[in-house]
Amino acid sequence: MNRDGNISMSVIKRLPRYYRFLDDLKSLGMERISSKELSRRMGLTASQIRQDLNCFGGFGQQGYGYNVAQLHKEIASILGLDSALKTVIIGAGNLGRAIATHMEFDKRGFSLIGIFDNKEAICGQLIRGLPVRHIDSLDDFCRESKPQIAVLCVPKDAAKELADQLISLGIKGIWNFSHYDLSVMHPEIPIENVHLSDSLMTLCYRVTRDGEAPKH
Amino acid sequence: MNRDGNISMSVIKRLPRYYRFLDDLKSLGMERISSKELSRRMGLTASQIRQDLNCFGGFGQQGYGYNVAQLHKEIASILGLDSALKTVIIGAGNLGRAIATHMEFDKRGFSLIGIFDNKEAICGQLIRGLPVRHIDSLDDFCRESKPQIAVLCVPKDAAKELADQLISLGIKGIWNFSHYDLSVMHPEIPIENVHLSDSLMTLCYRVTRDGEAPKH
Repeated sequence: MNRDGNISMSVIKRLPRYYRFLDDLKSLGMERISSKELSRRMGLTASQIRQDLNCFGGFGQQGYGYNVAQLHKEIASILGLDSALKTVIIGAGNLGRAIATHMEFDKRGFSLIGIFDNKEAICGQLIRGLPVRHIDSLDDFCRESKPQIAVLCVPKDAAKELADQLISLGIKGIWNFSHYDLSVMHPEIPIENVHLSDSLMTLCYRVTRDGEAPKH
Repeated sequence: MNRDGNISMSVIKRLPRYYRFLDDLKSLGMERISSKELSRRMGLTASQIRQDLNCFGGFGQQGYGYNVAQLHKEIASILGLDSALKTVIIGAGNLGRAIATHMEFDKRGFSLIGIFDNKEAICGQLIRGLPVRHIDSLDDFCRESKPQIAVLCVPKDAAKELADQLISLGIKGIWNFSHYDLSVMHPEIPIENVHLSDSLMTLCYRVTRDGEAPKH
C-alpha cells in the first residue's frame, strides 16, 4: 500500500469523516457498502470517494464494494488512532473543562494525562479523574511525563507565550482553541486550530446574506 | 461597493480572520497598516490580502495602507455582526454549557435567548442568566419568540430529528457540534459544522505521520 506518498491536506481532512461514517455503518451491522451508497450518505461523488481511498492503496473490489470493517480498521490505522499520544489540557475554564469531559480522547489517538490552570482556587479539583495542576508545575510535569500533545484552552493573551514554552518542553502538536493564530508563529509543528468565533461569524454572514453566498 | 457579488466561500471563510486581526490592531491603538505588514502578521501574501479585500470594493489607498478602524467597521458590517440573530442552544451538557458561557454571541452577530435540554433534573438551572428549558417546550417557544439560529450540542442520535424539527419551526441556520453531517441532509439552510473529533483525528494523523503530511 502506498501509505507513504505525499497525500494532500484535503484528502487528509476527509479521512476522519470517512472514519466517522464507517463507524456508523459498522455499528449498524453493515458488512459491505458500494462507493455509490457511501457517496449518497456522505454527499460526495462516488468518483471522489474512489479517488480518495485509492490514495491509500484502494480497498474496494469492482462490483463488490468496500468491506466496512476492513476499511474502518485500515483508516484507523492510517490516522494512527491507536497511538495514545500523551496529552495535556492547558486551561480548565468552561471550555477546557468541557473538552476534557466531552471528547473521547482514547478513541481518537490520544491519552489525557494532565490538566493545568493558573487559578489556585481550582487546583486539585478532579476533571475526568485528573486533578487540575497549577501551571507553575508544567515544566516539571513535562520533564517527567513527556506529554506529546497540548490542548490550548486559554485566552488569546496567554496563548503565544504558552505555545513557546510547550514547544521548548518537547510538545509535538497543538490543538488550539485560543483566538490566536499559532500556526503563523510555529510552522514547525502540526497545529490544528479550532476557531469557534470564526465559525460563528461565518454562519452570521451566510445567514444574513442568504442567497448571495455560495453553498458548501 | 460590490458587496452583492458572488463571493467565494474561501474568501468568506477568511473574513472572520481579518476581523480578528483588525480587532487586535485596533485595541493596540494602530491607525493604519500596510498590506505587507498585515500579510506578515497573518501568514498570507500581501497580494492575497489585496485580492480578498478587493472583493468587497477595496479599502486601501496606494502607498498609504489600510485605515484599521474603517476596515474593521466595514468587515463587521459585511459579516453582519450587528444582526443580533435570535439564537437557541439545544443541549445543556458539558459542551452546550461551555459554548453558552464561553462564546461572545453578542459581538458575533447573535443574541442568545434560550437553552434547552431533555433532562428534567437540570431544567430551571441558570446558564448565563437563562433558565434551561425542557425540550418539550421548544415548539411553543419557537412560535412565540421566533429564534433564527440553533446551536446543536446534542448526541449524534438526536441531531437529525432535532434539525428537522428546528427547520420546520423556522430556524434559518444551524451551528452544529453534533457528530452528524447535517449539511448533507439539509442543503437548504446554512449549516456550520464544528466537528471536534475530526479535527482531533487530523491532528493525530499529522503528528504520527510527521514529515509525510504537507504543512498547511
